[in-house]
Amino acid sequence: MNSNEKKQQPPYYAVIFTSQRTDGDNGYGKMAQAMEELASKQKGFLGVESARDSELGITVSYWETLDDIKKWKENSAHKVAQEKGKEEWYKNYNVRVCKVERDY
Amino acid sequence: MNSNEKKQQPPYYAVIFTSQRTDGDNGYGKMAQAMEELASKQKGFLGVESARDSELGITVSYWETLDDIKKWKENSAHKVAQEKGKEEWYKNYNVRVCKVERDY
Repeated sequence: MNSNEKKQQPPYYAVIFTSQRTDGDNGYGKMAQAMEELASKQKGFLGVESARDSELGITVSYWETLDDIKKWKENSAHKVAQEKGKEEWYKNYNVRVCKVERDY
Repeated sequence: MNSNEKKQQPPYYAVIFTSQRTDGDNGYGKMAQAMEELASKQKGFLGVESARDSELGITVSYWETLDDIKKWKENSAHKVAQEKGKEEWYKNYNVRVCKVERDY
């Protein structure tokens, strides 16, 4: 996790978001940063890690409970970003909600 | 998941491997490719996704069961690569074993 990391023993939850971007920035970078800042203020947020290369982007966010993930998904500013992502930024994407059972 | 993808409904399992590399390749690229090919031949392998930028690498592999993950961790060629990773390739790394509960 990044500098926002709060240490937590498993079980906790992870959202694995993988995406292939469309060409050009189209406001993506600014929105991605804003969303990361907003996520970090949500209840149950534990941290986020991101890596992007020319083929694929992977962002994993970590949360205390499934309910925290649900609330973040339904956050109104985040919903706007999700819609914009579907319309403009992503060729395709996948979201996986996971229970972290072990870490080392 | 990549072209090795086998479609599977949740629940299935994911290993989230995040790492910060040391400088230079030092044989890493070749070994990483060999490990991906070897993993794809293991029982229960469903797919793998990787992204790396200047700060962080994230590799997520997907598996049918926890036992498949355990066997892959204990694979002898993979064990050699893991040791080499600890000694030479990674400044630090994290492994998280997760149960994928939902995907969309």
